[in-house]
Amino acid sequence: MFESAEVGHQISREEYKTRVPALREGLLAAQYQLLESAKFPVILIVGGVDGAGKGETVNLFNEWMDPRHIQTHGFGNPTDEERQRPPMWRFWRALPPKGRIGMLFGSWYTQPVVDRVCGNTSRSDLIASIEEIRDFEQMLVTEGALVVKLWFHLSKKAQRQRLKDLESDPKTRWRVTETDWERFKNYDKFRKVSEYTLRETSTDSAPWMVIEGNDPYYRYLTAGTILLNALTRRLAQPPKAPTPISLLPMPALDSRNVLNTLDYTQKLGRKVYEEQLEIWQGRLNLLLRDKRFASRSLVAVFEGQDAAGKGGSIRRITAALDARRYKVIPVAAPTDEERAKPWLWRFWRHLPMKGQVTLYDRSWYGRVLVERVEKFATEADWMRAYQEINNFEEQLVRNDIVVVKFWLAITKDEQLKRFREREEVSFKNHKITPDDWRNRRKWKAYETAVCDMVAHTSTENSPWTLVPSNDVEHARIVVLRTICEAIEASFNR
Amino acid sequence: MFESAEVGHQISREEYKTRVPALREGLLAAQYQLLESAKFPVILIVGGVDGAGKGETVNLFNEWMDPRHIQTHGFGNPTDEERQRPPMWRFWRALPPKGRIGMLFGSWYTQPVVDRVCGNTSRSDLIASIEEIRDFEQMLVTEGALVVKLWFHLSKKAQRQRLKDLESDPKTRWRVTETDWERFKNYDKFRKVSEYTLRETSTDSAPWMVIEGNDPYYRYLTAGTILLNALTRRLAQPPKAPTPISLLPMPALDSRNVLNTLDYTQKLGRKVYEEQLEIWQGRLNLLLRDKRFASRSLVAVFEGQDAAGKGGSIRRITAALDARRYKVIPVAAPTDEERAKPWLWRFWRHLPMKGQVTLYDRSWYGRVLVERVEKFATEADWMRAYQEINNFEEQLVRNDIVVVKFWLAITKDEQLKRFREREEVSFKNHKITPDDWRNRRKWKAYETAVCDMVAHTSTENSPWTLVPSNDVEHARIVVLRTICEAIEASFNR
Repeated sequence: MFESAEVGHQISREEYKTRVPALREGLLAAQYQLLESAKFPVILIVGGVDGAGKGETVNLFNEWMDPRHIQTHGFGNPTDEERQRPPMWRFWRALPPKGRIGMLFGSWYTQPVVDRVCGNTSRSDLIASIEEIRDFEQMLVTEGALVVKLWFHLSKKAQRQRLKDLESDPKTRWRVTETDWERFKNYDKFRKVSEYTLRETSTDSAPWMVIEGNDPYYRYLTAGTILLNALTRRLAQPPKAPTPISLLPMPALDSRNVLNTLDYTQKLGRKVYEEQLEIWQGRLNLLLRDKRFASRSLVAVFEGQDAAGKGGSIRRITAALDARRYKVIPVAAPTDEERAKPWLWRFWRHLPMKGQVTLYDRSWYGRVLVERVEKFATEADWMRAYQEINNFEEQLVRNDIVVVKFWLAITKDEQLKRFREREEVSFKNHKITPDDWRNRRKWKAYETAVCDMVAHTSTENSPWTLVPSNDVEHARIVVLRTICEAIEASFNR
Repeated sequence: MFESAEVGHQISREEYKTRVPALREGLLAAQYQLLESAKFPVILIVGGVDGAGKGETVNLFNEWMDPRHIQTHGFGNPTDEERQRPPMWRFWRALPPKGRIGMLFGSWYTQPVVDRVCGNTSRSDLIASIEEIRDFEQMLVTEGALVVKLWFHLSKKAQRQRLKDLESDPKTRWRVTETDWERFKNYDKFRKVSEYTLRETSTDSAPWMVIEGNDPYYRYLTAGTILLNALTRRLAQPPKAPTPISLLPMPALDSRNVLNTLDYTQKLGRKVYEEQLEIWQGRLNLLLRDKRFASRSLVAVFEGQDAAGKGGSIRRITAALDARRYKVIPVAAPTDEERAKPWLWRFWRHLPMKGQVTLYDRSWYGRVLVERVEKFATEADWMRAYQEINNFEEQLVRNDIVVVKFWLAITKDEQLKRFREREEVSFKNHKITPDDWRNRRKWKAYETAVCDMVAHTSTENSPWTLVPSNDVEHARIVVLRTICEAIEASFNR
């Protein structure tokens, strides 16, 4: 991939001077059109060889365009808040909102490549990382992002010369550090690993553009033109018509399903409940204080029909926990900062650190439940969500996050009983809204959505636990026990 | 302060059962009114003696009200992202938005009290912390927040008994840890220090409420009633009419001021500029890589008339920096998440970690400049802002953040020249908007605001640097040099 970036490309000063004004004008106009429409974010990844002009190009872009709408991120060593979460967390954190340009120096490519070059990881680790990157970039593109990936290249000879030149001038000597020479020693390995990585991640929707970095006029003009073309093309794209999905999930022909075959008659009785409650709360508390939990964390998802008892179950858990350990995240309408990011962003931001717990009161599954049923999401959107969710949860599990997911299931009659009770008791009637009655009329559609969700997202690593909840006490104990057992199982992995 | 919480308060089970429904109903109604109006946040601080029912009360509040609109925060050891910023950063981070209730377990009181009890700090350190807390809470209240501070108390005898009782029951044994007994040894010291702290921070706008924690019925009912009363009173408060300030700053009678006495004729010339630029950029780069900078950070504020050259100056700085080291924060209209917090929140969130740099392109000074001139802020708001800003910057400086603040000053004629030029050059005319012309017509009002700003906020620790910028090259060098010198000075402190 690098041969064509070693041919000694260059542009004369005159040609550069002649062409720059139109380029700047074009970039600015495109940037403003992007800003005003605020339809999608631009993610510009800047990678390549040291000394090939990465930094200078980013500086120039900031000069050519309006820097107030450009976010430049450099990624150094991760902080502990970052280290204690899945590796992609810090990049989710840095994603630009719709309408803005994010320039990323170093990116999700840096660590996998560097680790492989230094021999910290195996070839199969690199392949796994590449797989993850492809999924991630695919998600960004599907969410509308324009992903532009620039690789600034220098031949070995050119890089040596470049570092020497900088060093020999007292005014630019500071630009060259020992680390630069350190890294230069690994040139061949670095070239090989990055060539492979670029090749494997150069997809149709997010191809790599390799730029020879030797001649500043050539590289600036080329980088600017690539960005302008990409922006222009993307801005001219008509909004995607929702593509109908050819094959949708289909309810079973005998209409038996995972919900209507649950045993809703299970019941505990007050006395047993209170005993069990103390036992499991105590056990949970001790498990979280166990040394082994210090390198793990817990994500628990609570979904269920309205009035199924999500809140009550959550409170039975938090009652057993130190407030410093947990966060409860009630999922409601996204804020404008959240709406400007890919849809999973608002769940990523709340992931727990090591030793911590996040309880999601409703979750990312809204995408395939309410958003599907109410048609807030297109078929294409919720269909791809299954895969996006599985990828997401896989990352959690791979990073020692215990994932438990509860569907609290009640029967239609039981729901009616609870709605009526809520209407009657004064301090409960805030819990019942016209929305609840409306959702109830769509009982069947929700049931289908739940069954599809379970079919697609109940995986070995993060299975769904369907909890018959007509008896709230029974349900609460099942929830507590399931969490305890999941944590214990993680200790034995 | 604690005597009245050691008299053996108690409420009978019957009375409790009778009174709770009305209390719940009241709390819920108030919570919903709060949510719908979204006029102010509620900050509930829960402190006190271990075993006095802090956690249980918070759990109960979550049961009595709608927990989806309550944010519960426990503060354990700070993360490195928190440790590397001023101590208050983590609390700013946790402030609830308008319309919500934030329940804080542990708070800005914990560390000062614990440090003093353990003898890590002196009495005068504690006094300084208390001063800081009072300023902070005053700011919250002035910003509209309802601050409710509950202290759960137990006498020494009662605490010992409580810990023993919990321990003797196998089902609750897990609730008592070694740390609890450890801390019990310090009971007397803890009592003394917290009594002093409570007394000093019990202000009219945010008084402490001490609750005897022995009898659960008493403490629940009392805590609930306090919260309900506070909510009800605050919700009933009419919106504050802007109080006219009796004494506003006044322009000097001879109309000489810090701006019109600057020497705008200073000029560098291209050659000197280019030499100086490389020198100072190199010096800055080395200073940031100096080991001593690893325990410091830099905040640079750029303000100035439209077209004074803020962006250009900022780019001359970033050109010298590694992208991993700095963030540029362009200050524009706040997002809805930002609008729901006290006004300084959106600046706190971007403070640099150790070894890092944040460049603010416009800043918190907007409060006393554009918001004053355009009357977006009331007189009372911008007048109090001087003090709030000084408190803020004092915290930065005290925590080894080097603060530099630039006012890039140009003359009215020079601005006109630049506006015209911007209109003529195609890739510059995005930089000129009708707003710029409008602001220009208010030149005098802005000048007054700038002079007042300098008078009130140019402090020994974070002075303003007024930079005559008719010659952009001269200005850029002054900016670079000032930053270098400020960092060097910090090394000698």
